[in-house]
Amino acid sequence: MTSGSPAPIDLRSDTITTPDEPMRTAMAGAEVGDNVIDTDPTIVELEERAADMLGMEAALWTPSGTMANLIALSLQLQRGDRFLAPRGAHVLANELGSAAWLAGGMPDPVEHDAGPGRPTPATVRAAAGPPNGPYYTLRTTLLSLENTHNASGGAITPPEEHAQLVATARDCGLNVHLDGARLWNAAAALDLPPAALTVGVDSVSACLSKGLGAPVGSVVAGEAEFVERARRMRQMLGGGVRQGGVLAAAGLVALERVGDLQRDHANARTLATGLAELGWDVEEPQTNILLAAVPDVALALERLRGLGILALPMAGKVRFVLHRDVSDDDVEEALRRIREERG
Amino acid sequence: MTSGSPAPIDLRSDTITTPDEPMRTAMAGAEVGDNVIDTDPTIVELEERAADMLGMEAALWTPSGTMANLIALSLQLQRGDRFLAPRGAHVLANELGSAAWLAGGMPDPVEHDAGPGRPTPATVRAAAGPPNGPYYTLRTTLLSLENTHNASGGAITPPEEHAQLVATARDCGLNVHLDGARLWNAAAALDLPPAALTVGVDSVSACLSKGLGAPVGSVVAGEAEFVERARRMRQMLGGGVRQGGVLAAAGLVALERVGDLQRDHANARTLATGLAELGWDVEEPQTNILLAAVPDVALALERLRGLGILALPMAGKVRFVLHRDVSDDDVEEALRRIREERG
Amino acid sequence: MTSGSPAPIDLRSDTITTPDEPMRTAMAGAEVGDNVIDTDPTIVELEERAADMLGMEAALWTPSGTMANLIALSLQLQRGDRFLAPRGAHVLANELGSAAWLAGGMPDPVEHDAGPGRPTPATVRAAAGPPNGPYYTLRTTLLSLENTHNASGGAITPPEEHAQLVATARDCGLNVHLDGARLWNAAAALDLPPAALTVGVDSVSACLSKGLGAPVGSVVAGEAEFVERARRMRQMLGGGVRQGGVLAAAGLVALERVGDLQRDHANARTLATGLAELGWDVEEPQTNILLAAVPDVALALERLRGLGILALPMAGKVRFVLHRDVSDDDVEEALRRIREERG
Amino acid sequence: MTSGSPAPIDLRSDTITTPDEPMRTAMAGAEVGDNVIDTDPTIVELEERAADMLGMEAALWTPSGTMANLIALSLQLQRGDRFLAPRGAHVLANELGSAAWLAGGMPDPVEHDAGPGRPTPATVRAAAGPPNGPYYTLRTTLLSLENTHNASGGAITPPEEHAQLVATARDCGLNVHLDGARLWNAAAALDLPPAALTVGVDSVSACLSKGLGAPVGSVVAGEAEFVERARRMRQMLGGGVRQGGVLAAAGLVALERVGDLQRDHANARTLATGLAELGWDVEEPQTNILLAAVPDVALALERLRGLGILALPMAGKVRFVLHRDVSDDDVEEALRRIREERG
Repeated sequence: MTSGSPAPIDLRSDTITTPDEPMRTAMAGAEVGDNVIDTDPTIVELEERAADMLGMEAALWTPSGTMANLIALSLQLQRGDRFLAPRGAHVLANELGSAAWLAGGMPDPVEHDAGPGRPTPATVRAAAGPPNGPYYTLRTTLLSLENTHNASGGAITPPEEHAQLVATARDCGLNVHLDGARLWNAAAALDLPPAALTVGVDSVSACLSKGLGAPVGSVVAGEAEFVERARRMRQMLGGGVRQGGVLAAAGLVALERVGDLQRDHANARTLATGLAELGWDVEEPQTNILLAAVPDVALALERLRGLGILALPMAGKVRFVLHRDVSDDDVEEALRRIREERG
Repeated sequence: MTSGSPAPIDLRSDTITTPDEPMRTAMAGAEVGDNVIDTDPTIVELEERAADMLGMEAALWTPSGTMANLIALSLQLQRGDRFLAPRGAHVLANELGSAAWLAGGMPDPVEHDAGPGRPTPATVRAAAGPPNGPYYTLRTTLLSLENTHNASGGAITPPEEHAQLVATARDCGLNVHLDGARLWNAAAALDLPPAALTVGVDSVSACLSKGLGAPVGSVVAGEAEFVERARRMRQMLGGGVRQGGVLAAAGLVALERVGDLQRDHANARTLATGLAELGWDVEEPQTNILLAAVPDVALALERLRGLGILALPMAGKVRFVLHRDVSDDDVEEALRRIREERG
Repeated sequence: MTSGSPAPIDLRSDTITTPDEPMRTAMAGAEVGDNVIDTDPTIVELEERAADMLGMEAALWTPSGTMANLIALSLQLQRGDRFLAPRGAHVLANELGSAAWLAGGMPDPVEHDAGPGRPTPATVRAAAGPPNGPYYTLRTTLLSLENTHNASGGAITPPEEHAQLVATARDCGLNVHLDGARLWNAAAALDLPPAALTVGVDSVSACLSKGLGAPVGSVVAGEAEFVERARRMRQMLGGGVRQGGVLAAAGLVALERVGDLQRDHANARTLATGLAELGWDVEEPQTNILLAAVPDVALALERLRGLGILALPMAGKVRFVLHRDVSDDDVEEALRRIREERG
Repeated sequence: MTSGSPAPIDLRSDTITTPDEPMRTAMAGAEVGDNVIDTDPTIVELEERAADMLGMEAALWTPSGTMANLIALSLQLQRGDRFLAPRGAHVLANELGSAAWLAGGMPDPVEHDAGPGRPTPATVRAAAGPPNGPYYTLRTTLLSLENTHNASGGAITPPEEHAQLVATARDCGLNVHLDGARLWNAAAALDLPPAALTVGVDSVSACLSKGLGAPVGSVVAGEAEFVERARRMRQMLGGGVRQGGVLAAAGLVALERVGDLQRDHANARTLATGLAELGWDVEEPQTNILLAAVPDVALALERLRGLGILALPMAGKVRFVLHRDVSDDDVEEALRRIREERG
């Protein structure tokens, strides 16, 4: 920003949220241990709390959501396996291909024919193909869901649809992984416990460092035996850390804040309404992400930047993400700047 | 077959073709050498002839088309790369995922919006995305074409469309691989030299053991430097053989037979016409493969088997493949059996 | 060779052996089939014969010994595993590292403290380490033996030592693979059936294209269930071939020739004695390989080449390999040339 | 510990060190940013400071030393490469084999014939082998050193030997990586700047969470271009974090404490002297690690545990590690307990 410019309103991602004082205080006072050769008590507490909230038997802290997904896929895929994921899923588009080259699966993107971010059970069944194919053919072994679905504008898979997808996957002999980086947002929007959205899955990942505001960290959860194998895989990837309790302490604060996400969702709706009134082609946001179709994404981002509004491209559109470091006033101010430029 | 059954007419694949007497004679008399520590003179001759026919600087013999594709993709992809291929391409669907877990690319299947088996340049451009993305994003680096496209019923990409796709790929900074397992069929159908269909590619694979009838073997071709790296990769995968000239001798005979494929194409059209007259929902075959849409693929295959006609499922349809071990009379006989059962 | 030079006596490797008339006749008349989607009857016959000779439940044809070993290791190793192999083993030194990067094991070379090519049980036990280590540690899961051991000059592991090594490995919780590329030579030298040297192993590979003279091909053998998994892995690597019976027919002839190897062993001893009389520092050959210590390997190979005698470097020495394409007279002639040059 | 037991003296590893008040205060006040889509200013500051101290152009923060090494090896190895490392190196023995299966190199352990933890240049040269081998052979491309060498009891490679090893490696066409997890200890013991021990290397890793006491984190350093590629690889592995400045702030405090390590070294010598007086077979410690040879490691560790003294097995011995959370009095107390038990 040149001197005199207004402070930018940063709607690029909820990953930019910074830890606030309660988090920093918690970090400064955290009880810690060597979480490789022993356990770190605060990490253990976080993992137990996260497992409980996610309705799983156990959970494992990881440095990032990318590693959480990578571990889950690595443990559930092997060479010769095919896995299904909704087109544009984070594991397909945003993790540098590790699901393919490291986890070892051949991805098969499925269409969102049930609604944004989610296939119908029939599509899953058709893509899974017949079981027991000849030895020289790929075997479809995993369905990887994403709730909310980032590239579909934070779209929610409702619990009943989730349950049907899981049932179909099971019937086709597939395991189910759920990329729940923003599962908290879905839970807040539906006013349900997160565990209501993980029913029947084999593994789920969830992020502490997006809308919940922790500085670093995610979890991957599943059965206790799965988590023990995940711990070994985390070590292989270099994700085993020593006194990580300083981060887990922030994560524990974050887990108290799922309800706060409703404010971000309200702000997303306010922004959508305002933009629509200004003639923008926006979708009604289900959670904290808003996609706007524009003729030229790069140009639109450039103009917004000129107004002190930061956003990112996503799925051929402009993506705005609301988060705890964006206030109600910021949203009004963003709309005001866009309105004025236009005027 | 139970005693008294008629001999089955085997339309499962052109891979079942068996070497005939000229091939066997050539094999029996082949001059050979250790093709790992030295070179095998007959393999060298085959490689030179194949390179010449494919319009490439050099070629390398491989035990299979799967290995030929795997070598080409392994040399042109690295971790963090995305590659494009028409949905249902052999490298995506039929090679046990090695393009992902071994070659290391994240596949992105593209639609066949230009016609069966081929995308439009616009679709390639859109899928390639902007170059020079941030460091944390996948980079699209390769377009993998397939001519003819197996799962689209042996569909041809015409030379002018091929050229446009290659030009678009280049403009987007992509390399181009061509899976030409049945490139010979495309060339025969168009009455063009195979090299007319490889213009501008970085690598091309082609099979000797499908319609051309050699018992074992394929080639991968490209620039001389590429082929030297391919030789090392072949050795890594265990595809380096010693006195392989016995196989290459059959391959040299096979390469004389590209023109013979026109008979298989005529037989495919005869079968299609006959089946259409009997009310089957068949597509007009472009080469030697015929897809028939049926309500229940497994049931249809079972009934055909009962008539002594063997076929395989492909892309949710019944696939018939015509080849040099199926005579004109066999085609008439197959139609007769189907007609009679129906009658 | 310049004009007028005597024909070179090629002692580089037994891999250079070329198929003779009986093999070529067998190949020309072989019954064949598509060994991917069906089975090839001659390949099946070869696999059954090889399994029987090796004392295993089943066997699988592969294009090379490198692929046979790679398949065996890939099925018995996973990320986080360590495997033991005698220092200088072919899987460590001569297969381009695929045991590490593709099969996925961390190699731990063990010393040959029991004799050339073989560790003592105590060394295996010490290297295996305690079982049930912490989750963050490598787990030693496999012992890979090699009989005869190439880099140790074709050294034999006698059956009783083999049995003790296997028993120790079992006791330490390790699987056992045997690289038996030249197991036939050990069997011939000991006048034992090959199965006497595979007792207790989980998998064994053996080559048809070395001393036995077949043009292309190896086998990997184990329990039937292992071989079914090996078939899938072979397909992944591109080692599945169609009418490979043409090669298997040569392999069947090769398997009749194990006894012939004794002539090569006698020739190796003749060469060793002759060289020793000329002052060379040679080891007494146990089979068909002879290592000679020289001050400068490159220089020695160059001088030999000038005499029309071809050899290769191995383990810092000059390696001579006797094989069926080297006659008794060739050995005498080689000694004569060396003697004369010296004279 | 049962009630009434004395507090254990924990000599298992310097990884158990916990952040003290200055570190916690620094963490609580750290300026942070999203270190994936932007940069985190405190991480940047740490990386610049670390690069400067290590004498490299640039550095990259990683969650662990394992990931730092893995990134460095992944960028410098490819399939078909062999790399050399002193037998027992951390990258060989303690990182779950990722150097092999993920970085892709075939390891070749070299002997410590120059002294504990380090080979002679002649050994490196012999192991590197001749350059420009045939295409079907492994190529030795990297020497991975470790200073101090953990499994050799924290042994130092002196700067002049380091320089000779690097020069030899260069002369053989090898890159050089230095695992400097405890390079700070070597620098402190020699009273040299750490950069004096990295001369000529292509990459170096160093840990903040061992003797220096930071809770989480390491760095990998090299040329700027290398670090840019490392940033991408870190993201692939899931090591990219958001507001990691909270950890980097602790790391910056840690980097001020290299001199403090001399106290740990003095304590190691005190412990060694005391144990030797009690008849233990101990080596003179060069830094903060002490190895004791005992007849039965498991039994010895059990007895020590009974005395409230914790240690770990390493290289077939008992390893004691001195660190900032062990006081001078703790050392005296540990000796007292051992003496009394013996008494």
